[in-house]
Amino acid sequence: MEFHTREVKEMYHERAALSVAEQESLGVPSLVPPIEQMRRSMLAVLVERLQKTADNIQTIFFTGKYESGKRKKRKLVILGSGWASYAMIKMVDCSIWDIQVVSPRNYFLFTPLLASSSVGTVEFRSITEPIRQSNERVEYVEAECLYVDPTRKVLTCAPVHKAERNSRTLEVGYDQLVVAVGAQTGTFGVDGVQQHCHFLRGIDDAHRLRRAIVEIFEKANLDIYPEEQKRKLLSFVIVGGGPTGCEFAGELCDLVRNDLTRFFPLLVNLVSIRLLQSRSSILTEFDASLREQALANFQKSGVNVMSNSKVVRVTKDNIFLRDGAEIPFGLCVWAAGNAPTNIAENLVASIPDQAKRRGGRILVDDYLRVIGLKDVFAIGDCSEMASGDLPASAQVAVQQGAYLSRLLNKLARDKESSNIRSGSSARPFRFLSLGFLAYIGNNRALAQIKLHNRQLKLAGRFAFLLWRLVYLSKQVSTRNRVLVLADWLKTLFFGRDISQI
Amino acid sequence: MEFHTREVKEMYHERAALSVAEQESLGVPSLVPPIEQMRRSMLAVLVERLQKTADNIQTIFFTGKYESGKRKKRKLVILGSGWASYAMIKMVDCSIWDIQVVSPRNYFLFTPLLASSSVGTVEFRSITEPIRQSNERVEYVEAECLYVDPTRKVLTCAPVHKAERNSRTLEVGYDQLVVAVGAQTGTFGVDGVQQHCHFLRGIDDAHRLRRAIVEIFEKANLDIYPEEQKRKLLSFVIVGGGPTGCEFAGELCDLVRNDLTRFFPLLVNLVSIRLLQSRSSILTEFDASLREQALANFQKSGVNVMSNSKVVRVTKDNIFLRDGAEIPFGLCVWAAGNAPTNIAENLVASIPDQAKRRGGRILVDDYLRVIGLKDVFAIGDCSEMASGDLPASAQVAVQQGAYLSRLLNKLARDKESSNIRSGSSARPFRFLSLGFLAYIGNNRALAQIKLHNRQLKLAGRFAFLLWRLVYLSKQVSTRNRVLVLADWLKTLFFGRDISQI
Repeated sequence: MEFHTREVKEMYHERAALSVAEQESLGVPSLVPPIEQMRRSMLAVLVERLQKTADNIQTIFFTGKYESGKRKKRKLVILGSGWASYAMIKMVDCSIWDIQVVSPRNYFLFTPLLASSSVGTVEFRSITEPIRQSNERVEYVEAECLYVDPTRKVLTCAPVHKAERNSRTLEVGYDQLVVAVGAQTGTFGVDGVQQHCHFLRGIDDAHRLRRAIVEIFEKANLDIYPEEQKRKLLSFVIVGGGPTGCEFAGELCDLVRNDLTRFFPLLVNLVSIRLLQSRSSILTEFDASLREQALANFQKSGVNVMSNSKVVRVTKDNIFLRDGAEIPFGLCVWAAGNAPTNIAENLVASIPDQAKRRGGRILVDDYLRVIGLKDVFAIGDCSEMASGDLPASAQVAVQQGAYLSRLLNKLARDKESSNIRSGSSARPFRFLSLGFLAYIGNNRALAQIKLHNRQLKLAGRFAFLLWRLVYLSKQVSTRNRVLVLADWLKTLFFGRDISQI
Repeated sequence: MEFHTREVKEMYHERAALSVAEQESLGVPSLVPPIEQMRRSMLAVLVERLQKTADNIQTIFFTGKYESGKRKKRKLVILGSGWASYAMIKMVDCSIWDIQVVSPRNYFLFTPLLASSSVGTVEFRSITEPIRQSNERVEYVEAECLYVDPTRKVLTCAPVHKAERNSRTLEVGYDQLVVAVGAQTGTFGVDGVQQHCHFLRGIDDAHRLRRAIVEIFEKANLDIYPEEQKRKLLSFVIVGGGPTGCEFAGELCDLVRNDLTRFFPLLVNLVSIRLLQSRSSILTEFDASLREQALANFQKSGVNVMSNSKVVRVTKDNIFLRDGAEIPFGLCVWAAGNAPTNIAENLVASIPDQAKRRGGRILVDDYLRVIGLKDVFAIGDCSEMASGDLPASAQVAVQQGAYLSRLLNKLARDKESSNIRSGSSARPFRFLSLGFLAYIGNNRALAQIKLHNRQLKLAGRFAFLLWRLVYLSKQVSTRNRVLVLADWLKTLFFGRDISQI
């Protein structure tokens, strides 16, 4: 079953308009706003226009002007709604391509601020944007892709809604397919992680985490527990010394120091925060000098960084390390490792050339085409370049999305197929690392940024200012930018909210 | 087991301070912010002071200056964290009373804006305030009261945290007890309501509702359903023509008209909104002229108001009325009726003088003392005055809370017991109705307000402005006021967010 193409959609619009007119002539109230209604909120309309202008300069620049769908466009289906997919939505030319995004999540999430949102420094809705809002000329389908049939060029998808899951499937056809389904958290086969740890992948995780932290304090505040058990409850363990783990440790520390101290003065001295890293150092992407400053900052703020601590088992309230140590905890956040999603794994297994690979990431060539399939691309965390592995980061995903958009725009304009001939003007993808930023708590951050041929290395408050400025400017819309800024001010003036919501 | 009295708390503080000093002399990092840390954020401190001054003028005025706990204070326990409890927290004299609030919910909720929050006009955290923040001299215990033992003057409570529920209990002693546990939604014994309807009692309900509305649109947008089924999915039914039901109908209409129209243009004509009322008219507390204007407004905006529609049964996707009609629905909100909470029912059953009463509300005399018990008061929705029933509204709850605070302050100062003697200067409680406000959608509201001896009756946009001004001024803190205002501006400029969070 195919979805509405642009033409059908327009036809529908006309029909809908007609039926409204008919309805109104009959005196039946309609839910489509009448023109009188539209005329009213001039201020809102004006502001919306200004805001759209700001947001869409880039989109319109790249995706071309709207042409009413007279000629048949080719259909591009994008799986996923993360960074890679988002970059494409903003940059693929909608006058050439009929674009459909298929994803179980109807919004884009600004992942670098997820750790902040899990303690309430920013709110969840300030760092998300609905896909339908990102580019209104892109069609969105809320479903999960189960199988790809590259021969028929058809996807089999399942609705993700309660009571519908697995009971029905729908088929989505494509001319070109982009797989950008990301990854899920990897547990390295450690027993008990799925059952007993919190994660930091999506808004749901952050929401559960935010609620759990306050719950632990409220629980420890009850006088039915002896001090020893309170210490155990208030033992926070973070597994993974990468940017996510370190930023969460920093944010948690801020929450405890700045807010919970005020509300639970008797408990704060019982709190412990441990950051476990299996390797010998945390934040390995940064220079040694910056890593040392991060360590010093963590020590000063009371975060116990434990390097060379490999977790072998997690139970309801204990973590066991390889060296035999046992750490009791009240809350454990697992911020280590990536694993392939089901659909990526299925896809890899179905390709004869790739089926024997381990790891489950989809192998792609220099043009991001899936090796062994025709007209299928893979970008972001779910893919792996045959010419050399790239880090699983937002930076790579965005650059791949932008590259692929330009490539597809070019191929369509030049009427080339995705069989890029030798001698074609298309150039292979090259990743350009712009540097790294990480918040480490206590209004301090690390920054290691490439400027021309020099490298800027900063640690401390100035780096924190830079971190905030960069993340503010990287927000995907004016709305997000305003809301994130408002949240930061709110946290500065009113503190973080401890309501258990 | 008793909780910390103020004295013990102070002792603890000294001990905690000592151990920090000790720790620091040993070089162990501590999580209590060092003084250097405190000195930094002068701006934040200044703003916090100003803000506290504004918030606490009333609190300090009523609750007296802080006196270090040299003399033994009497212990007042308040059950609940709703309107009645909130009014007491803000007004009981903390220099006379040692106050403990016991409630499973650690925040106060501004219920009149709950319907707004369920569609995203305001955010959840903008209309809540943590009890710990409301009055820092009040102690909060996160637990649910199971039994009251009026002979021993002890409450048996249970923690509400996962894995702890029912496994342990704690006892809380009191000198005076105030029961302000509110009510839960009543289903009038209609079959299927608990399983298939949404409610509008707390933030969790509003959160589920907000998510469900967008989910229905995303689901109906899939092309696997025929138009007939889409109509069924997009059939919204609200049961209850009181202020909650009407305000939700208005807000839902706004969401559909202003926001969902833009994102789901093909679906909006399939939407239907029905408001079922068992009586012959909606909003019965308002004058007939205002009710008519509300009806006209609903009709204009497409809400189908069905009076004299008594629901007899609800199934997974159908509502059955007494007259035999059957309404298919995709989402049903049950906004009708109050029922007693378990603890109120238990309490009533345990009092010989009240055990045979029906309805489960706790009978109180003119001084809000529970009839048949000593040193126990009941206020708000869980209580019923023997001298005449009052509406179950925030207005009554707040006035009762304020009255009881003054009464208890007076009794304690005059060293009277709660056996108010005849000839005492204490006056009985009298409710003063200030009027009613209700939002009806499309930027219009109803207002019927008492001014001296005249009654101000308004319907339309000016009433809407009044509604907003009154609710803004009634917010319980500067923080809430700023956030609600910011949310209204956000909705005006950016629209409501449709991310499924």
